[in-house]
Amino acid sequence: MRRKALHRRAFLHSGATVAIAGPVVAAPALAQSAPEIRWRMASSFPKSQETLYGAGQTLCAYLAEATDNKFQIQTYAAGELATSRQALDVVASGAVECAHTPLSFHTGKDMTLAFGTGLPFGLNARLQQSWWAHGGGSKIVNDALKAFGAYGIPAGTTGPQMGGWFKKEINSLDDLKGLRFRINGLGGPIFARVGAVPVDSPHADVLAALESNAIDGAEFLCPHDDERLGLFKAAKLNYGPCWWESAGMVHLLVNLEKWNGLPKAYRAALAHACDAVNLGVLAKYDAINPAALKRLAAAGTVIRQFPQPMLEAFYRAAVEHFGEIAAKDAKFKKAMESANGFLKDHIPWLQASDQPSDAFQIAINGRA
Amino acid sequence: MRRKALHRRAFLHSGATVAIAGPVVAAPALAQSAPEIRWRMASSFPKSQETLYGAGQTLCAYLAEATDNKFQIQTYAAGELATSRQALDVVASGAVECAHTPLSFHTGKDMTLAFGTGLPFGLNARLQQSWWAHGGGSKIVNDALKAFGAYGIPAGTTGPQMGGWFKKEINSLDDLKGLRFRINGLGGPIFARVGAVPVDSPHADVLAALESNAIDGAEFLCPHDDERLGLFKAAKLNYGPCWWESAGMVHLLVNLEKWNGLPKAYRAALAHACDAVNLGVLAKYDAINPAALKRLAAAGTVIRQFPQPMLEAFYRAAVEHFGEIAAKDAKFKKAMESANGFLKDHIPWLQASDQPSDAFQIAINGRA
Repeated sequence: MRRKALHRRAFLHSGATVAIAGPVVAAPALAQSAPEIRWRMASSFPKSQETLYGAGQTLCAYLAEATDNKFQIQTYAAGELATSRQALDVVASGAVECAHTPLSFHTGKDMTLAFGTGLPFGLNARLQQSWWAHGGGSKIVNDALKAFGAYGIPAGTTGPQMGGWFKKEINSLDDLKGLRFRINGLGGPIFARVGAVPVDSPHADVLAALESNAIDGAEFLCPHDDERLGLFKAAKLNYGPCWWESAGMVHLLVNLEKWNGLPKAYRAALAHACDAVNLGVLAKYDAINPAALKRLAAAGTVIRQFPQPMLEAFYRAAVEHFGEIAAKDAKFKKAMESANGFLKDHIPWLQASDQPSDAFQIAINGRA
Repeated sequence: MRRKALHRRAFLHSGATVAIAGPVVAAPALAQSAPEIRWRMASSFPKSQETLYGAGQTLCAYLAEATDNKFQIQTYAAGELATSRQALDVVASGAVECAHTPLSFHTGKDMTLAFGTGLPFGLNARLQQSWWAHGGGSKIVNDALKAFGAYGIPAGTTGPQMGGWFKKEINSLDDLKGLRFRINGLGGPIFARVGAVPVDSPHADVLAALESNAIDGAEFLCPHDDERLGLFKAAKLNYGPCWWESAGMVHLLVNLEKWNGLPKAYRAALAHACDAVNLGVLAKYDAINPAALKRLAAAGTVIRQFPQPMLEAFYRAAVEHFGEIAAKDAKFKKAMESANGFLKDHIPWLQASDQPSDAFQIAINGRA
């Protein structure tokens, strides 16, 4: 496509000796509204994480096909243009036009960004999207991103994740005391508050660390991704629910100047491609996780639930932890009140609709 | 826009006397890949149903902005080009290029189309999308639509709907005997099997029928839409869950020849606009239903649950009803096995993830 455009320009240059006003005026007008644009995308995911890395590629493919290949973005895996955690930096500096990344990777810069991904004991996947679009979430998170010269669009939601992998039974908080638990993201400080030792290590190292007893337990993502990482080979017990990640929203971050400089139609095409990918990633995980869970069970994984008193202790620790942050950070406090209020308002409708409906399906279909 | 295109063509015609190969060849090539297209859309929704009628308008706006207004579709409300139930007919005949409609409105033509919307005791909103995209749903439903020369893309999912409105308590199947219950769609025959008298009337007539005791109960859609229709003025008790509609997927139906004739980029732009609307409608309903439910409660509506033995009786009646259809219709049988198998496979993951997570949220946030 780039070659074709260059070719056309060269052709016009050499051939247009006898000018005809019409086509010559018309061509730049068309070129202006549909220019050839080539961007790069820094993905926070390695190629081995094929669902989320692949979602970035799908986004680029959707955009290219909707713009007749005029607006193309090339995906680069984590480490190629930037490490996973540098995604916001390179977009902020303009070194890379856009990135595909979970905002929870960038809370060191601003804790409010956590609400882009979803907090522990936060909104589930559907509510996160609803809060983003209709509950003020987009404004809250994009106001925070503006300070870094970035604009965020949801572009992939994993849905509920898998609980922690442990080698021994976890029956009470006593069983967590001193336990070295690999966890990345926002749940770490909560585990620390209840006595565990959170370890934030790159996911590629987790299996070896678990096998060598450098750590006692670990969490990664969801059945499909955890199975690929092989965690089940080193730990048999998997405890849920994964209260530390209930939505798992991932964003496309675009350098704000680059975003504002796009023709209106390209902004729309890019936004719709993000929506398509956001819908698609959740649909895909909802389809591939049950199959992975079945294979894990066949390989000996035992799915357990954290006892209710433990969940309550985790919840109290989370309320304390985020309450302390909110006491020092008014922006975070406002975001927390917005998301928590949205959740609380939604509960009676959940109780009247999907909750009893899903419970009935579980009663009918759940036991063999 | 149409005027602009005509203008350009006229200009080329009159002006291009001294031909220069370059621009003259280039112009038609550009015109071919991004032609001006104007379509009409027959919505199955009246303007008063502003969320779903509005979703069709949003779809058209998204498409126009992503194509720089080159591909425009004009929405017509139910009754303007076709009645709600004629939407598939006018697309099949080519009288109208596309329609925005629930496929459950067209099961008189082919029962398999029901799986486009979702069956009673069927997939919930998220699973319907997952089955559509990754469980074979799109192929099953589009194979059925092919017989009518139509192609379907999901373009709006309501999510869980509201249960039935009743004037008196419903404690057992005895309370349903002979009860005239307005219900539209696939749940009617199930109510008939347990002794009620299903009445399929236009939703605009429902409130008056309920007020005059021409019917004893009614269902329509969800808290937001039911409130607008005013059903709470004539019946105080609202029983759920709405086992007869758990997904509520709505489609854009495109005449197959028109679809195949679109430039590739326009097919992509239209598909992504549908995805954006599909994501957006559920997010909107998830945001507006809780507020409506709160207003309904303040106006005196009492939310009740069908007792478990009643749910089980409804479920058995549904299994019988759809089993009888499947026994005579191999295509329907295959679709049912696909959707039911997808649901059954998903249940263990639901039990390990969102179900306990949502249950915890209800325990913490659900009681005042």
